[in-house]
Amino acid sequence: MTSHLNLPCSRTVSPAAERLRHILSEDDATPTPTIFTEMDTLQQDGEELEWKESARWVKFEEKVEEGGERWSKPHVSTLTLHSLFELRTCLQTGSILLDLEGYSLPQIVEEIVDRQIADGLIPPDLKEKIIFVLLRKHRHQTKKPIHRSLADMGKSSNTPSINLTRSTSSSSGIHRSTEDLRSRPSSTLSRLHPSQSRSMNDISDTPSTDQLKNKFMKKIPRDAEASNVLIGEVDFLDKPFVSFVRLAQATTLGGLTEVPVPTRFLFILLGPQGKTKSYNEIGRAIATLMVDDLFSDVAYKARDRDDLIAGVDEFLDEVIVLPPGEWDPKIRIEPPKKVPSAEMRKSVLNLNELGQMNGSAGGAAGGEDDELPVQHELGEELKFTGRFCGGLWLDIKRKIPFYCSDIYDGFHIQSISAVLFIYLGCITNAITFGGLLGDATDNYQGVMESFLGTALAGTVFCLFGGQPLIILSSTGPILIFEKLLYEFSKNNNIDYMELRLWIGLHSCLQCFLLVISDASYIIKYMTRFTEEGFSSLISFIFISDAIKKMVGTFKYYPINRGFKPDYITSYKCECVAPDQASALGLNVSAPVSEDNITLLFNLTDLDWSQLSKKECVKYGGALVGGSCKYVPDLALMSFILFIGTYSMTVSLKKFKFSRYFPTKLRCLISDFAIIISIMVFCGLDYLLAVDTPKLHVPTKIKPTRSDRGWFVLPFGKNPWWWYLATFVPALLVTILIFMDQQISAVIVNRKENKLKKGCGYHLDLFWVGVLMAVCSFMGLPWYVAATVISIAHIDSLKMESECSAPGEQPQFLGVREQRLTGVLVFVLTGLSVFLAPILQYIPMPVLYGVFLYMGVASLSGIQFWERMKLYLMPPKHQPDFSFLRHVPLRRIHLFTLVQIICLAVLWILKSTFLAIIFPVMILGLMVVRKMLDLMFSQHDLAWLDDILPDKDKKKKEDEKKKKKKTVEPESDEEETRMLAKGA
Amino acid sequence: MTSHLNLPCSRTVSPAAERLRHILSEDDATPTPTIFTEMDTLQQDGEELEWKESARWVKFEEKVEEGGERWSKPHVSTLTLHSLFELRTCLQTGSILLDLEGYSLPQIVEEIVDRQIADGLIPPDLKEKIIFVLLRKHRHQTKKPIHRSLADMGKSSNTPSINLTRSTSSSSGIHRSTEDLRSRPSSTLSRLHPSQSRSMNDISDTPSTDQLKNKFMKKIPRDAEASNVLIGEVDFLDKPFVSFVRLAQATTLGGLTEVPVPTRFLFILLGPQGKTKSYNEIGRAIATLMVDDLFSDVAYKARDRDDLIAGVDEFLDEVIVLPPGEWDPKIRIEPPKKVPSAEMRKSVLNLNELGQMNGSAGGAAGGEDDELPVQHELGEELKFTGRFCGGLWLDIKRKIPFYCSDIYDGFHIQSISAVLFIYLGCITNAITFGGLLGDATDNYQGVMESFLGTALAGTVFCLFGGQPLIILSSTGPILIFEKLLYEFSKNNNIDYMELRLWIGLHSCLQCFLLVISDASYIIKYMTRFTEEGFSSLISFIFISDAIKKMVGTFKYYPINRGFKPDYITSYKCECVAPDQASALGLNVSAPVSEDNITLLFNLTDLDWSQLSKKECVKYGGALVGGSCKYVPDLALMSFILFIGTYSMTVSLKKFKFSRYFPTKLRCLISDFAIIISIMVFCGLDYLLAVDTPKLHVPTKIKPTRSDRGWFVLPFGKNPWWWYLATFVPALLVTILIFMDQQISAVIVNRKENKLKKGCGYHLDLFWVGVLMAVCSFMGLPWYVAATVISIAHIDSLKMESECSAPGEQPQFLGVREQRLTGVLVFVLTGLSVFLAPILQYIPMPVLYGVFLYMGVASLSGIQFWERMKLYLMPPKHQPDFSFLRHVPLRRIHLFTLVQIICLAVLWILKSTFLAIIFPVMILGLMVVRKMLDLMFSQHDLAWLDDILPDKDKKKKEDEKKKKKKTVEPESDEEETRMLAKGA
Repeated sequence: MTSHLNLPCSRTVSPAAERLRHILSEDDATPTPTIFTEMDTLQQDGEELEWKESARWVKFEEKVEEGGERWSKPHVSTLTLHSLFELRTCLQTGSILLDLEGYSLPQIVEEIVDRQIADGLIPPDLKEKIIFVLLRKHRHQTKKPIHRSLADMGKSSNTPSINLTRSTSSSSGIHRSTEDLRSRPSSTLSRLHPSQSRSMNDISDTPSTDQLKNKFMKKIPRDAEASNVLIGEVDFLDKPFVSFVRLAQATTLGGLTEVPVPTRFLFILLGPQGKTKSYNEIGRAIATLMVDDLFSDVAYKARDRDDLIAGVDEFLDEVIVLPPGEWDPKIRIEPPKKVPSAEMRKSVLNLNELGQMNGSAGGAAGGEDDELPVQHELGEELKFTGRFCGGLWLDIKRKIPFYCSDIYDGFHIQSISAVLFIYLGCITNAITFGGLLGDATDNYQGVMESFLGTALAGTVFCLFGGQPLIILSSTGPILIFEKLLYEFSKNNNIDYMELRLWIGLHSCLQCFLLVISDASYIIKYMTRFTEEGFSSLISFIFISDAIKKMVGTFKYYPINRGFKPDYITSYKCECVAPDQASALGLNVSAPVSEDNITLLFNLTDLDWSQLSKKECVKYGGALVGGSCKYVPDLALMSFILFIGTYSMTVSLKKFKFSRYFPTKLRCLISDFAIIISIMVFCGLDYLLAVDTPKLHVPTKIKPTRSDRGWFVLPFGKNPWWWYLATFVPALLVTILIFMDQQISAVIVNRKENKLKKGCGYHLDLFWVGVLMAVCSFMGLPWYVAATVISIAHIDSLKMESECSAPGEQPQFLGVREQRLTGVLVFVLTGLSVFLAPILQYIPMPVLYGVFLYMGVASLSGIQFWERMKLYLMPPKHQPDFSFLRHVPLRRIHLFTLVQIICLAVLWILKSTFLAIIFPVMILGLMVVRKMLDLMFSQHDLAWLDDILPDKDKKKKEDEKKKKKKTVEPESDEEETRMLAKGA
Repeated sequence: MTSHLNLPCSRTVSPAAERLRHILSEDDATPTPTIFTEMDTLQQDGEELEWKESARWVKFEEKVEEGGERWSKPHVSTLTLHSLFELRTCLQTGSILLDLEGYSLPQIVEEIVDRQIADGLIPPDLKEKIIFVLLRKHRHQTKKPIHRSLADMGKSSNTPSINLTRSTSSSSGIHRSTEDLRSRPSSTLSRLHPSQSRSMNDISDTPSTDQLKNKFMKKIPRDAEASNVLIGEVDFLDKPFVSFVRLAQATTLGGLTEVPVPTRFLFILLGPQGKTKSYNEIGRAIATLMVDDLFSDVAYKARDRDDLIAGVDEFLDEVIVLPPGEWDPKIRIEPPKKVPSAEMRKSVLNLNELGQMNGSAGGAAGGEDDELPVQHELGEELKFTGRFCGGLWLDIKRKIPFYCSDIYDGFHIQSISAVLFIYLGCITNAITFGGLLGDATDNYQGVMESFLGTALAGTVFCLFGGQPLIILSSTGPILIFEKLLYEFSKNNNIDYMELRLWIGLHSCLQCFLLVISDASYIIKYMTRFTEEGFSSLISFIFISDAIKKMVGTFKYYPINRGFKPDYITSYKCECVAPDQASALGLNVSAPVSEDNITLLFNLTDLDWSQLSKKECVKYGGALVGGSCKYVPDLALMSFILFIGTYSMTVSLKKFKFSRYFPTKLRCLISDFAIIISIMVFCGLDYLLAVDTPKLHVPTKIKPTRSDRGWFVLPFGKNPWWWYLATFVPALLVTILIFMDQQISAVIVNRKENKLKKGCGYHLDLFWVGVLMAVCSFMGLPWYVAATVISIAHIDSLKMESECSAPGEQPQFLGVREQRLTGVLVFVLTGLSVFLAPILQYIPMPVLYGVFLYMGVASLSGIQFWERMKLYLMPPKHQPDFSFLRHVPLRRIHLFTLVQIICLAVLWILKSTFLAIIFPVMILGLMVVRKMLDLMFSQHDLAWLDDILPDKDKKKKEDEKKKKKKTVEPESDEEETRMLAKGA
């Protein structure tokens, strides 16, 4: 045992760490290759000895299961302390050959044995026997296709035929006298004539086809080198034969490794019989060490035996120990989501300071850098330049280099799903808002204008905007503004379109002013509190709108309550002629329009009972009967479509995490979840042929109102002073647009999304301004970033790492940042006019289901939402969020409560006429956030929110902290670091 | 370091193990108490020093989170190897006081310090300072009610007010000169006058109210003793002060421990400043050791320092090591489902053989005893006595002692839920089968008979049967038999009821013969293969029946496809008088029965249009119009009720595993899941007032057919030879009953259910026979065990352990075995006639949903079903089933395939008229199983199924194995053990 493990209660720099620091810092320039380790054990197959692969490591351990035909799941290698100490002893006593020049296995083996003899570790007469054993053929665990396996089914595993089929994997170049060998029982092996053993190796120098075909290769990094661990039990040794070899150059040693990866390290342990389990454990220990980032570095750079032993000691110093009474060693531990990086461990080595253990009592928090809450680092990209158009210029400069990749990064199957999903969202939105706008403005802007405007604005923005992942759409506040404006102009006899044009122009100019003056800088004050509050609110609105529309269907198509099938004969709806109706005392309320009067005269002798409901009403007839207002099945069918689409989408999205089917198929299903659900429920709707409300898209390009054209003239209809006075309402529109646009951009640029191509707040605002003017001239609605659809866009473009070591969790890599999907979505929206025949099969309830999904999905991953759920959980069942470890629960609850109150207030305001100043209220949220500084400590806020970028404040806090330093010396270091980050 | 950790590659018995074996075997008679460990660290609160609780252990670690107001979730204590070695050194150098006579903390502390001075470890002048520090008050982490916490919200934590409220927990008997202390900053502590320190302890000898009120107490076993770990950093020491104390008697030391548990052990570590983290880790290490089963034994029995160190060494020898590169030490490991028992570890100690590590390469399988597949051990209770009524006598002898507990064990809230659930299942079944029987026998046996029979048979069986958890019900095969029998008797003019009576009597006699001859013994040959095959099949039938009935609703109440709301006026259904109808060329198909002819004459001048559908048909009118056969909303509403009930039940059942709400509430919700779902959907149905098909229960007790009474006379209607000839069909019925009854009993008695009161196969059959005769006499249907409902009954009565150490998984304890629920279910069934006004609100689709749930739920936990799912999973995603570790996948798939084919064949047979010999075919399954012995090795079968109880076979296998021994020496040991178990 080294002395450093045997310290007294005080602690100094250990000699092992000292030594390692020295060799690891020598040449940091060349990174060492990744190591793939294969462990083969010597086994008896029938009457032949062979090396059989029993486990492998890329990062985690995969073991050949007892049944012998199956790789275990990758798991964390749990070792015994014993085996590590035994390994240490083995390295101390065995022979270590560093930088051996090797070109073939027989040559290497011979050198190893010669060295052992030279060192006096084994008697020379064992040489041939050991070489014989070491050159036995290697049988690797390869996947057998299942049909072949089924064919083998009847055969027992020790018939020679299977032997042969299996051994082809490494049988090239075999010169075996198998007859000779087969006739001897295993115990007589040591009596083999030494001269025979040499010819019996099956090792060729070129990789076999089986090796090359092995699909496992793609799981191994390209630069990998192999480390082979050979563990065996033989009857001719009376003490272990141990050898650790590092080759000068990585060399492909024939069929030694299951994949064509050149071998760099060899660890051989042959020992006397009776201790197989112990040897296996030692083999697992060295294999685990070889794939350890730190030890593999040491193994590459070791100068002598002591360096290796120092490596083992340092490994021992870092291991995590599970008490035997609290853990069942038979449990295979699933690989964790995240492991400490090699760099961190190396730096720790230099500091000679262990990483903090998870359960450390007391409040010590050193070494938790990577656990610090994610801080927004907008500062870099959103700095206040102070120059004319400085921010805009920086945005353009940042975006131009990515322009080409913005196109070709879009070519991926995922994009198809994203385009279809977002397209459906967009047209549903366009139709809904178009309809509402049409109602609000007497069709001056209707569904047609909404479609064209969406297509135009979206395409332009996605082509030239700063953040092409943002989706422009009509939003609620704008709708309300238009409504009020139309009412105002109608009541005051002002031309609405001209008035609107001037507001648009003013607003456009104001946007330009904001761009020029780098005003988007204030976004920096928008912390998680504000941003999550805003996005939660929008999500809630989405959810409540979807449900409201669904409930609306129930009102529009009421259920036949209390319907008695037996009395079907009394359920009728008859059209009664007006004269009859009045005779019957019915109140004829149908409007008789002027157009119909002529008709009416011709139709007095009409067969009223043959008329349809609409016709009846049109001609002034009365509908008589109990069933007139009931529509069978429609409400319930709509409900089934709505819930069905939503729950199927959720299930399919979750399907990714199920165990069924290969990963790729599951990902595909998950990516296309929404499209699949929509198709399934459209199909169901089509099959049942129930007349559910469908998506109706205009089929001809012409303004909704016939008395307006596609271009609005700026002058002539209103008095001249309106051209100036519109400045004031324009200001409101500008604030509205600015807040809506930039806060959506902040949400899209969230650090969690790992965007790499940078943001473009100024550029975005510039284009939104331009589009304001264009849309005003063309009499189209105004557009601004739509939060929920933008989040859905991003979610549908998320990338995860694919090729990783077995057991490693796929990492979220970022989002496919490109302009293609956005552009396609809006081009499709423009073309929807021609797609009407297809689109008319989509029932509206299905789309409401999609909306519900969008709303719910955009809530996930929001910390605010997670914190709300905490209210319902008893503390002991709460998930292990890092903020829960660091902030008292009641502070967390208080913080959440404040957010809930803010949202409730916003929700109430939104439901009144004050909705128009809704975006301005976001500023209110920011003020509330500022006041929270008084209620909560900066430490708590750093975990629950972000620190506000206030330099004076920061200094003050620092001083305050310094005062506290003497009182709470432990938490201080962390807080300073946090504050520094927040700056 | 001891030498035993530093072995060469070979291994011998370590001296530590030797030593431990000696002291642990000394007096095994007295079990050592459980240890509760509390770790307190010395901290500065304001200007006072105090000991603050920082972690505690019952079995797993709970730590006080950094925020200081929250216990972490219980987790496995992950330690550093370093801290364990440092602890070892501390025990080597510090003072060890074993069996100290202690009665109060001050006295104990004084003795400790005196000993240290005597040993020359500290200079005498530090005595007062150390005593002062050690007697500071202890602040425990107690749950604060949230409203109180919210009130504290604004106050900063170092105001005296909070100090006082918190310190009340241990402030009784305080004589503090706080003013004196407050005026001094912490660094001047060492300058305190020694004479003051003594008076400042706050330790009283009686437990405080806060201690007594602590709810955590119920998590600690009654016999527990406390071990207190005190870790602190002081500025007056220059080397660590370490002391390990074992008191002669466990003594309550005032407010030292958070709960009123007497202290037995004390570990004190005071050290110089600057190493808090290291000290904390040492504290966690000793605390973890103290709760380790083996080490706590050692601590109780240690004779000297070396025994303790041997204990540490043995602990080190057993620890499980996680490599630093594969695991993030910050992850808190959730407690495992199962940990190795202390006994096993002790026996391992004696064998000096480590348990196998999870990932051990190669096929070594030693030490896996507890992982062996569960083997049926019916043998004990189902032995062939060979005596007259031997089995029956044993059954009665086994059951009598439990009779009282069979009643009072039923008094539990869970029973209410079980009774309601099973009751609803039973009456649904009674109605369904009653209806079908009525159809099949021209109402000789109808719904009324079904109700009465179910109530009678069920009550008798549950009161006197051998396995009162079994629920009797009508089953498919019996139904088919009755149908064929009725047709036969009708065609041959034989009196059905009398014929049936004789069959019943013969069958009853045959059952008695089977009982007398212990024939139920053959059940032993029914392995998992047969049993799971049967129960899966029954489950599938349940599921398919539920779905079929649902689909039937769609046919019965078709959806108005292609309905155009606008043309509602043309949808009519009018009743047209017969003469008009023929004039219109309509085909009047309504039957004009003789009863109505007189009516008809009177009704010629009837207003036909005022008639209801039924009346119209009755009077021979014709229904004209497109809407006659459509019933709005009913089909879809039924579907919503069906799916809704099913999915809500599933979600509520799963809710138990969610994080929300306290465990008890969740368990309650889960227990009442079905009742809640039924109520919710009945309520929804009531609110929507749609005329869905409802449960209709007969309201008067009288035979369904008016020409039969409640008693069938045995003689007089049929020729005498029928009385003998009925022996042949009775044989079929007997086989049918025997198989159905006993296989259900096997399923109920599954080892997984952990039944404790034994089985009663013979007694069961006896009562079924008696009931056959009784039911035949009364003309009621015959009853036999219903598999799915019985499983549902058991599932709804499952118990889990409640009071366990924090973090320990609740264990499945067994089933509430009692007669009360069964009896209540059937009494309620009998009373249903009077409950009709309530029951009529239950829509049938809701009950179909319950049936679907029953079918699906009874599939869960069936290995066959798990294996079927494996087909769809790529090997790397398959769960870690033990049989997957031991049997090659293709053999598993083959085995599953055989089962699927068997089931498919049974399913097809069941759908034809051969259904009547369906139970006989179970015998066929047993034959197939026998043949599987030829296809699969006994090793594979032991994992996938059970070994057949065949002694000759076993011997043969043993011999075969012995032959293989030389070839595969490793797996042999295990196989022998397995075979031995299977015998």
